[in-house]
Amino acid sequence: MLTTRFTARLGVEHPVALAPMGGAAGGALAAAVSNGGGLGLLGVGSAKDPAWVERELDLVAQGTDRPWGAGFQCWAAPVRVLEQVLERGPAAIMLAFGDPRPYLDAVRRSDAALIVMVTDLAEAHTAVEVGADVIVAQGTDAGGHGGSRGTIGFVPVVADLAGDVPVLAAGGIADGRGVAAALALGADGALLGTRFLATPEALGGPVQEKAVLEGGSEDTDRSSVVDIAHESGWPARWTGRALRTPFSDRWRLHEDALRSDPAARAEFRAAEERGDPDATVVWAGESLDLVTDLVPAADLVGVIAGETEAAVRRSAGAVR
Amino acid sequence: MLTTRFTARLGVEHPVALAPMGGAAGGALAAAVSNGGGLGLLGVGSAKDPAWVERELDLVAQGTDRPWGAGFQCWAAPVRVLEQVLERGPAAIMLAFGDPRPYLDAVRRSDAALIVMVTDLAEAHTAVEVGADVIVAQGTDAGGHGGSRGTIGFVPVVADLAGDVPVLAAGGIADGRGVAAALALGADGALLGTRFLATPEALGGPVQEKAVLEGGSEDTDRSSVVDIAHESGWPARWTGRALRTPFSDRWRLHEDALRSDPAARAEFRAAEERGDPDATVVWAGESLDLVTDLVPAADLVGVIAGETEAAVRRSAGAVR
Repeated sequence: MLTTRFTARLGVEHPVALAPMGGAAGGALAAAVSNGGGLGLLGVGSAKDPAWVERELDLVAQGTDRPWGAGFQCWAAPVRVLEQVLERGPAAIMLAFGDPRPYLDAVRRSDAALIVMVTDLAEAHTAVEVGADVIVAQGTDAGGHGGSRGTIGFVPVVADLAGDVPVLAAGGIADGRGVAAALALGADGALLGTRFLATPEALGGPVQEKAVLEGGSEDTDRSSVVDIAHESGWPARWTGRALRTPFSDRWRLHEDALRSDPAARAEFRAAEERGDPDATVVWAGESLDLVTDLVPAADLVGVIAGETEAAVRRSAGAVR
Repeated sequence: MLTTRFTARLGVEHPVALAPMGGAAGGALAAAVSNGGGLGLLGVGSAKDPAWVERELDLVAQGTDRPWGAGFQCWAAPVRVLEQVLERGPAAIMLAFGDPRPYLDAVRRSDAALIVMVTDLAEAHTAVEVGADVIVAQGTDAGGHGGSRGTIGFVPVVADLAGDVPVLAAGGIADGRGVAAALALGADGALLGTRFLATPEALGGPVQEKAVLEGGSEDTDRSSVVDIAHESGWPARWTGRALRTPFSDRWRLHEDALRSDPAARAEFRAAEERGDPDATVVWAGESLDLVTDLVPAADLVGVIAGETEAAVRRSAGAVR
């Protein structure tokens, strides 16, 4: 058993949380991670479809009686969807990518812990100022959207800023060695995304599953190409790390040109809709080399927890 | 005391090595790190000036009787300079940035351990194939030249590939929490550069010292701009992380344009020669936020070793 300020605050068994990945972390995956003793976070994301959120909340409710939570993108998610989630009694709400302040009143009226994810020092200061209960320090190593800080150098700085507030490390972590590294850096656990894509519970279907199992870290890169093509409205300060495609290679250093080429954007979206594998977006991070097998998510949490203890004991054994 | 396969193989007290930074890691710094119980590595770099190398080797010889080494850039350094260094009896030779094979015979005729630094999987495979005694897995988080892999996800993969060969983690590490994270990830220690810039022994002078103490991680970025301006011949597959300047901001996303603009390049070099602070190149990494004080290098090794043990014990204390 590994006990940290995070496990104590959230009432979970292991210092492992599921990244609330939009399009991947649905209710079944969130429930499975919670059942495994971690903190499952439903990926509400931009909350464009409240009916989808309702269905996935039902799956969480049916799937687990352990602590769970949900993650929101502050640049996009309406407060009313947060309120819809809070009615289901989550143990935590994670706010990321934007100003958390508009959501604070609703969270504070509930019993949910406030988790704020940060990608740079300015965001970390804001997280402390708004009184976050947990701060997630996410490095550019992460899959999906993020900033430019490297995980290994960012986490200790956030831990110093956070003081008594527990910190989770995120980005580039897919096994217990990474979680143990997070603890060494001063964090209280880790938030994992890419690793949980290779579970039967992840949404995304067989194309994503195959791509994740076969792809490697060096097949990923980080840019705004997909956001521009999707016309998603994502603020350009957060870029996205995904498996490279011919399309992303074509436009990566020419993002302004793509912004002024509506035909190229429409062509990409049409190809994506047809299911063209070259236009399938698979968000994945720097830890992808470590993801080589499909494992039920609840089991995975236990495996990672065991690996974490083993890594901690191995380091301790080096001290004489 | 922290004992790893690295400390055992090299006969050093602490699992900490000095990055052989060209222009910063001279003989005085290498000797001081070795005296502190780490492995000091002289930054021979591209070895353009054998007379400079000779003088710095004298400083190492006068400065320490502990194990020390030297680092070479394989894309540039002549074998005869390696042979010049080997005559002084180094405990280790580190080869980085290019094909190590042309240097192997000379190293193997000596008693020096062969350290190979790698920045991606292909280089890691080569390091194993050539029989490296130690492999340094360097992430893009590092200052100076490097690749695009993030440290926290790259180190465990290299550790798996390396098997019985000890690994050092490099990139984004500046204190004992980072060294402890390296151990957790499966490495046997860490190689630190940026942290050792803030020592009285580092070459570089007051402008660099001030920039390092005042700058932060978010003031750095990684590109080929400086190499293009310097017409240094650095292969573009390795970019450089340095403190941003108006010049690097101007050209970062326009490297091809700088390649075809000799006047802009000449203007930069002239400004640099004049000592214009806006044209002073300060290579520094993602750990820069953690570098806030000037500490004698030998003392620093001891401080980092103590922090490492404290971080390991803190993690071990979380296991029940």
